[in-house]
Amino acid sequence: MLILGLDPSLSCTGWGVIRSEGSRITHIANGQIATKPGESMPLRLAALQTGLREVIREHRPDRAAAEEVFVNKNPQSTLKLAQARGAVLATCGMAGLDVREHAARLVKKAVVGTGGADKAQVQAMLKVLLPGAEIAGADAADALAVAIADAHLG
Amino acid sequence: MLILGLDPSLSCTGWGVIRSEGSRITHIANGQIATKPGESMPLRLAALQTGLREVIREHRPDRAAAEEVFVNKNPQSTLKLAQARGAVLATCGMAGLDVREHAARLVKKAVVGTGGADKAQVQAMLKVLLPGAEIAGADAADALAVAIADAHLG
Repeated sequence: MLILGLDPSLSCTGWGVIRSEGSRITHIANGQIATKPGESMPLRLAALQTGLREVIREHRPDRAAAEEVFVNKNPQSTLKLAQARGAVLATCGMAGLDVREHAARLVKKAVVGTGGADKAQVQAMLKVLLPGAEIAGADAADALAVAIADAHLG
Repeated sequence: MLILGLDPSLSCTGWGVIRSEGSRITHIANGQIATKPGESMPLRLAALQTGLREVIREHRPDRAAAEEVFVNKNPQSTLKLAQARGAVLATCGMAGLDVREHAARLVKKAVVGTGGADKAQVQAMLKVLLPGAEIAGADAADALAVAIADAHLG
């Protein structure tokens, strides 16, 4: 079972693919799709879709997972994030991929063992759980974490 | 110049195509892309993309326009709307279509002559401005209104 974890955002969407077999997980690939701040919203969203479509075409995941969206205190940030998320989920839908959503707390709990873990703890644990994986950045790390949580949550 | 007006929403996205030549506008087509409430978010967003892609392929608009997004008091409604908008804008971006954004007040002003016009006044004026057009519904009407405003605003 190949699981694609996603951390959607307009400026940089993280992704990570893991293989889950029974209780064993192995790292397959991860990366980040960055968009140009100077470009229009339609072009940036299209860049996210093009990048993600390529990832799905290359790795052919069986399912996808993302953190549940949260409502930011800044409405403009929420709008940007939600539009990016819409483009990302639509790409999955077009590829016939289901996207399971998990609460941030459950993702941390699945990876570190406690829902209150900070980013550094999550990233340290990823090195243990996915030995040898070169992680492209913080967004790719978040995407791998949600993929691992998805594997644990069945 | 063919202008595609868009009124994105998750349940039903309205669209309308008009031709703008000098100060003359003519109706080309309009419609609504509805999604199934029981389906998953990725599938509903993919349905919006598939429907809109078909519209763009058939009518080959030169540019697109939508109302500026507004932040709803209900954060969950805002999230749904923004995700739908993300899928719609991404589809335009993939087709190389620029999407100009206009404030709701300016759209009403361009169509009715006053920024405080209500929906009924906008729809009555559409019948005058686009004689003979059969309008698919309220969402298609909103989409035609934004297309007309875009033509007026140059």
